[in-house]
Amino acid sequence: MDALSSTLAALADPTRRAMLVRLSQGEATVNELAEPFEISLPAISRHLKVLETAGLISRGRSAQWRPCRLEAAPLKEVDGWLARYRAHWEGSFDKMGAYLTELTKGDENGPKS
Amino acid sequence: MDALSSTLAALADPTRRAMLVRLSQGEATVNELAEPFEISLPAISRHLKVLETAGLISRGRSAQWRPCRLEAAPLKEVDGWLARYRAHWEGSFDKMGAYLTELTKGDENGPKS
Repeated sequence: MDALSSTLAALADPTRRAMLVRLSQGEATVNELAEPFEISLPAISRHLKVLETAGLISRGRSAQWRPCRLEAAPLKEVDGWLARYRAHWEGSFDKMGAYLTELTKGDENGPKS
Repeated sequence: MDALSSTLAALADPTRRAMLVRLSQGEATVNELAEPFEISLPAISRHLKVLETAGLISRGRSAQWRPCRLEAAPLKEVDGWLARYRAHWEGSFDKMGAYLTELTKGDENGPKS
């Protein structure tokens, strides 16, 4: 799988996104990351493996703790991909304005005055 | 699946992303969208269905053409989710600077002078 697809697939899960939110505040151990979730530690480990494979987190070398940390570079790639679409939603208020102007004209054939 | 996960899963495919790039330039028919790809029309239709289910495209009502158009709202949601991480990669040059400063100090116990 290409890197961007791998990143997006890793992000397509609410538990994994919540883990990244936690890591955006600083390093955390697996147990700390697992705490808010009512899922098994093996399931937590699988989620972390997906994030690590996508390059979204790295693990410390300390054998006992191996703290996880956020690696933001793949998120920057997603942001870069999104950039071309920004104009589409930034224009949406203008479009809504035009639509409302259209509505106030009366029916779809325009003003009859 | 939650809406954001559905959007990210739909984006986690290079063919579907390429279709959105094409649609960012304007509406297109299924045949126009299929043209650059060496995959079957049924496969194209499945990709379009995933994009439509995620709300990333809509289809025109004309029975014959049913042109596809980009719907940018779900991409805006992705952008909103990414916003909190922007500081992480925007700060990365500063972090690299600090790291290089650290390196020039000598070993990990700091300068010995």
